[in-house]
Amino acid sequence: MKRPLILVVNDDGISAPGIRDLIRIMNDFGNVFVVAPDSPQSGKGHAITIEATIRCDKVIIEDGPQTEYSCSGTPVDCIKLALSKILDRKPDLCVSGINHGSNSSINVIYSGTMSAAVEAGVEGIPAIGFSLLDYSWNADFEPLKEHIKKIALNVLEQGLPDGVVLNVNFPKSKKFNGIKVCRQARANWVEEFDKRTNPQGRVYYWLTGKFVNMDKGEDTDEWALANNYISIVPVQFDLTAHHFIHKLNNWNL
Amino acid sequence: MKRPLILVVNDDGISAPGIRDLIRIMNDFGNVFVVAPDSPQSGKGHAITIEATIRCDKVIIEDGPQTEYSCSGTPVDCIKLALSKILDRKPDLCVSGINHGSNSSINVIYSGTMSAAVEAGVEGIPAIGFSLLDYSWNADFEPLKEHIKKIALNVLEQGLPDGVVLNVNFPKSKKFNGIKVCRQARANWVEEFDKRTNPQGRVYYWLTGKFVNMDKGEDTDEWALANNYISIVPVQFDLTAHHFIHKLNNWNL
Repeated sequence: MKRPLILVVNDDGISAPGIRDLIRIMNDFGNVFVVAPDSPQSGKGHAITIEATIRCDKVIIEDGPQTEYSCSGTPVDCIKLALSKILDRKPDLCVSGINHGSNSSINVIYSGTMSAAVEAGVEGIPAIGFSLLDYSWNADFEPLKEHIKKIALNVLEQGLPDGVVLNVNFPKSKKFNGIKVCRQARANWVEEFDKRTNPQGRVYYWLTGKFVNMDKGEDTDEWALANNYISIVPVQFDLTAHHFIHKLNNWNL
Repeated sequence: MKRPLILVVNDDGISAPGIRDLIRIMNDFGNVFVVAPDSPQSGKGHAITIEATIRCDKVIIEDGPQTEYSCSGTPVDCIKLALSKILDRKPDLCVSGINHGSNSSINVIYSGTMSAAVEAGVEGIPAIGFSLLDYSWNADFEPLKEHIKKIALNVLEQGLPDGVVLNVNFPKSKKFNGIKVCRQARANWVEEFDKRTNPQGRVYYWLTGKFVNMDKGEDTDEWALANNYISIVPVQFDLTAHHFIHKLNNWNL
């Protein structure tokens, strides 16, 4: 079997330990191209860079067979640049992460990691986002490795339906109870902006918040992660609320 | 009937003509609070500001009964700040726009306008994004006004289901053929990065691209807009690809 072409991206920046481990895992069985942000891009969602220029330079971050590009744009910019300017054919797989922190539940829409995977999906590439529920720079990614390899090989072998990508989250654990295929839990963040005054007397804010899971279901990613399971949510990007079309057609507009 | 509390936001910036017209329409029947970006935030998707501070100051952009705040953050930051720090109760309605440019089809995931509406929806507020298929600063919003008022009043009266917001796009026209409730067309952007060299000899890029509609359906927003109809897509933010859960459960993971 020919070695697959694998595009690796993240949102924590090209030198984050999470992406370095993901590159090493993919080097085992693929020809790896890395196109990743030159600085942290957490919470950038599906942002693209329209009103500013973008740099994208070939770099060597670490020894290895991979080819690497560092990009000044967002995670979604990285995917667009990779496909348009760097790769000479569509990759067989795109993997994003490993994110330092959760992308479960509603976090999927804020996440640069998952938005990069979704962008690859929009472009017709099988894609997976990987995240670990540990925000620390020195998070232990070792227990994840065999599972990431297995999931990636499954996607390469079986493909994904058109318009579907995978959102994989790992609990912070040395040993998992298994894998659960889940739906996205209904949850949100309750903001608690931290209001401060700068040395010139001007008010500013830091965004902080508390995650609130309103979903009691045992088929959700939040339930799986709280019970030490790896969660996999198949994610799609047709945002149409199909169930409301019929009713909306009866409105007097 | 008590006048409803209406939150107005956009992504083109607080002084863009589109939001000024939207404020005027809402002033007719609601108590209006504006919390909008101090500068253009097009293409910011669902980005939030984590790694930087945010300013949010009370301003007077124009005479009128509305109360206005200008915010240095993204459109989604504006919603979060409004709900957490500015309004003393949940608004009855959130309207976003009027965007200078299309937010139909896949644009919904890149759009700051629609992400602000979605964020309001996540927080349980009935929300609508309005966009006109005309990118120019001097776009003519006049023909839209009666329709925007009617749609907003319908939402106030009938509400929206939990987890659903509306994405309303207007063709560039003086007179519309009517309104179509639609699904999001399957389309994407094919990027054509414009590669340039700066005066110091360093390469940089501008993101450009061509919109490609791959969807032949006559029930899509693209079809409606191309045929001079106003399109309304009900949008939801459970990204779970429910149809793939069963099959994924049979994978050997």
